[in-house]
Amino acid sequence: MNHFIKTVALIGSGNVASHIGKVLIKNNITITQVFSRTSENAKALARQLNSEGINDLSQLNTNIDLVLISVKDDVLVDVANKIPENKAIVAHTTGSISINVLKRFKFHGVFYPLQTFSKKKEIDFSTIPICIEAKDESTSARLERLGEIISNNVRHISSEQRKVLHVAAVFACNFSNHFYAIAEDILGENQMDFNILLPLIQETTNKLKHGSPLDFQTGPAVRNDQIVVNEHLKFLENNENYQKIYEYLSRSILNLKNEKEL
Amino acid sequence: MNHFIKTVALIGSGNVASHIGKVLIKNNITITQVFSRTSENAKALARQLNSEGINDLSQLNTNIDLVLISVKDDVLVDVANKIPENKAIVAHTTGSISINVLKRFKFHGVFYPLQTFSKKKEIDFSTIPICIEAKDESTSARLERLGEIISNNVRHISSEQRKVLHVAAVFACNFSNHFYAIAEDILGENQMDFNILLPLIQETTNKLKHGSPLDFQTGPAVRNDQIVVNEHLKFLENNENYQKIYEYLSRSILNLKNEKEL
Repeated sequence: MNHFIKTVALIGSGNVASHIGKVLIKNNITITQVFSRTSENAKALARQLNSEGINDLSQLNTNIDLVLISVKDDVLVDVANKIPENKAIVAHTTGSISINVLKRFKFHGVFYPLQTFSKKKEIDFSTIPICIEAKDESTSARLERLGEIISNNVRHISSEQRKVLHVAAVFACNFSNHFYAIAEDILGENQMDFNILLPLIQETTNKLKHGSPLDFQTGPAVRNDQIVVNEHLKFLENNENYQKIYEYLSRSILNLKNEKEL
Repeated sequence: MNHFIKTVALIGSGNVASHIGKVLIKNNITITQVFSRTSENAKALARQLNSEGINDLSQLNTNIDLVLISVKDDVLVDVANKIPENKAIVAHTTGSISINVLKRFKFHGVFYPLQTFSKKKEIDFSTIPICIEAKDESTSARLERLGEIISNNVRHISSEQRKVLHVAAVFACNFSNHFYAIAEDILGENQMDFNILLPLIQETTNKLKHGSPLDFQTGPAVRNDQIVVNEHLKFLENNENYQKIYEYLSRSILNLKNEKEL
């Protein structure tokens, strides 16, 4: 039973499913079927993966190694409940959902790639942390080996740890990206191009390889430069939302600095 | 008069002054003197720049090409007022202060490198936007040529534009970095290492070369996935500050999306 995973059914046809599907077939894993509730989506992704599209889980061929569920969090349990009992590993790819939602399957686990996936952008899986969880050793080992085929960064992460990771990732990725969007908005309102900020953004993240973000905090807030902070707040007075964020974050920067220096 | 800038006095000994000083001497510009109110700081940086440290502006030798003021915003005007009248260009390196604070000098301008400087980290100037401003063409041209010696990204930016840029940079750099610090804090509280997030952070910024941050917004907030958002808020209930930021930012992400889609 402890052989390599070679055949995978993909449950879902969104960003994550499609990126994972592509990297798997590139590594000679067969995608046996692609399921989506919308038949066109199932077929469209199946075509790219040299697979068969289905929109009814009773058609699922379970004589395979892995059923990989990669659907929106709010339908995951519902979809999982419709998967027929089987001897394959059933795993999901989600940051925020416990392994236990899959416990009715004999072999179940989690295969969570910690990354931000967008339709428009190809991705290099080799450095992506693949967070593995399973209840039994054989499933754990098999998922681990699958992870190692696509990435050099496979880790064993429990459901509790995965949740922490997901919250931290929302701050580090989703919320940071929102600030890029706000910066673009502010520049655009003044006929300036967002690209001028790219070297600054790049350097801000490059620094993280050299130490803690706390050591690299710069700007008026951490200097407690109230003159500049107040000027910026005045500049933002036409946008109450941005103004509030600016004020709140500036205070938070100073608080965290003081707290960590105590 | 329209010759290259070859001799520069540095007013200030902090991060920006020290990084600019180093890149200038690397490019065969002479740093004639380094001023700091603290004699030791002046001398320490002067030693690195093969220069003379002074702590009294009446000792400033003004028979040079450029007096470059790189001090904290809140003392800039004060320091500038103590510089003797002279025929050199007098310029500052600050994002948030108007060129007009230097108007009593015949040749005055701004030489603002849009970057985040840290003592610990060497920096490549070649891609840094150098934002130039001057009232007369000769000063403008001379500052521009100085900028071109150290960077391929020299731009003419007015005081008004510079202020917009600085506000946008606070969001894109300082506030993003604060979120990295929060992510590190959350992971640390749970005995997990911040490094696991680096590939995610890197990809979040890499995407920006391929389109607008609006197109690449991912995560529970933009999907309006209230189940996950509420779970994360519950997870953060021991830290009211992080919880408030999470709630506010999630709403802001959805608002901006809806606004831009209208």
